[in-house]
Amino acid sequence: MLKAIQNLGSVAYYYRLKPPHAAKTNAFVSTSAKPLSCSSPITRPTNPFMFLTRKTRSLGPVRAHSTPSESKMDGTSSSSVAVQSSGSARKINFCQWCGGQTKHDIPDGEEKMRAICTLCEKISYQNPKMVVGCLIEHDNKVLLCKRNIQPSHGLWTLPAGYLEIGESAAEGAIRETWEEARAEVEVVSPFAQLDIPRIGQTYIIFLAKLKKPHFSPGPESLECRLFSIDDLPLDSLAFSSMVVTLKLYIEDVKAGSRKFHYGTINKRPGSSPSDTHAYTLDHHLQS
Amino acid sequence: MLKAIQNLGSVAYYYRLKPPHAAKTNAFVSTSAKPLSCSSPITRPTNPFMFLTRKTRSLGPVRAHSTPSESKMDGTSSSSVAVQSSGSARKINFCQWCGGQTKHDIPDGEEKMRAICTLCEKISYQNPKMVVGCLIEHDNKVLLCKRNIQPSHGLWTLPAGYLEIGESAAEGAIRETWEEARAEVEVVSPFAQLDIPRIGQTYIIFLAKLKKPHFSPGPESLECRLFSIDDLPLDSLAFSSMVVTLKLYIEDVKAGSRKFHYGTINKRPGSSPSDTHAYTLDHHLQS
Repeated sequence: MLKAIQNLGSVAYYYRLKPPHAAKTNAFVSTSAKPLSCSSPITRPTNPFMFLTRKTRSLGPVRAHSTPSESKMDGTSSSSVAVQSSGSARKINFCQWCGGQTKHDIPDGEEKMRAICTLCEKISYQNPKMVVGCLIEHDNKVLLCKRNIQPSHGLWTLPAGYLEIGESAAEGAIRETWEEARAEVEVVSPFAQLDIPRIGQTYIIFLAKLKKPHFSPGPESLECRLFSIDDLPLDSLAFSSMVVTLKLYIEDVKAGSRKFHYGTINKRPGSSPSDTHAYTLDHHLQS
Repeated sequence: MLKAIQNLGSVAYYYRLKPPHAAKTNAFVSTSAKPLSCSSPITRPTNPFMFLTRKTRSLGPVRAHSTPSESKMDGTSSSSVAVQSSGSARKINFCQWCGGQTKHDIPDGEEKMRAICTLCEKISYQNPKMVVGCLIEHDNKVLLCKRNIQPSHGLWTLPAGYLEIGESAAEGAIRETWEEARAEVEVVSPFAQLDIPRIGQTYIIFLAKLKKPHFSPGPESLECRLFSIDDLPLDSLAFSSMVVTLKLYIEDVKAGSRKFHYGTINKRPGSSPSDTHAYTLDHHLQS
């Protein structure tokens, strides 16, 4: 768990019992391509906080929940925006329930440092967040959205966002697709789970199909467009997770078999924050 | 999202934009079986809070993080223990970062009620938690642990617990297996993702194998035992998620093909909290 200490400096994690670790394997080289057809009405975000950039510090409310960022993975400084939008840990100073100050200690029977309320003694846990999305196949093409929000404004992504309490991953992926691409979809099968431990995110991507052949940009998208797999904008994607997902998809389509993929995305140390190709896909497993 | 309002009474969720929902399909009937061989040294938990039961209200620190509960799904009252251990939402009264009081409102550009700090204006998000675990195959048998902690003390489970920030799901599943069964395992393939929206949990289960043929109960287990699939203790399992996982596994083994399964576990309304068979597996998809 040295990785956790290195990457999540605001919270010190360590084990009393050293757990064994998974073996890691690497994969992937990068390729490039360019766009196709389009549609685009809305160019102004409906939310004043949507334009907070990777390097912007929060001066007020942060609206980044349904627009996940890989900015911490990309190596930027740990601004409030990056921390909150990435879902990774920041130091908890107060108890959410009683407002008491917290102390940071290893609770009895646990192995990790936790924030413990000095008044009510409740423990505040921080856990990774799930980002759920759809890879929509239509006429041998894939639907992508051009982001109208930061981070990665103007770059392409699958419709995806944070899973909410009370919904399943499939329901969340369908909701995000509606919000970002105004497309009604049916989830067909699970396609990938991609963990990004450094920023505390897990991407859950489903293959899906349009219920009706209609889509248009929601407020968080500049445009939505169908791309054939030979023309996917691999050099203009918003996040490494999208690069990985689409490359796995291309491989599956070319091999003629759809699989379920699991893997861990690790950014290459020292790489540029905006270089979405500077990663390794470790521990890649298939079902 | 009516389900969210019904099931998570402490936080009111609703949408400004009504999203489309996933179609649902049901599955499964229940069967029963009984145990086999064993090993068991530790009978006393190392943590004084481990014995908080499903119906116990928290009077002090709650130790339930690595021992996920389905008690809210099982229909019990919303005690602190059930809420915290289940990972589902409870009302946030104070900001974790500045200690300011929160107000509950729908932020500009969002569709859901959130806790917003009245001092620093940061939004506190609550998201589902991932429970990661291993289904370990050894000599055509499966390794189960008998729980030495509440909830479901004395009942059987796959080694599993909450995913921590800084680790991948595979690493988390390997760690939990070490903590609960003192077994060093290698993850072989992803096996199942099972969402339980009502309690804000998602189970991620991997097929795994022993690196060495050794295992023994960790502090959270009374004993660990290998069961052949015809003798799995389906009527003595700790959680519905374990019933679903093991039934899917039995079906796959009998069919001679291992798949990846995705589905949503919904408890049947009005069923007994302890009836782990009173569920439907909805939206079951395979890859």
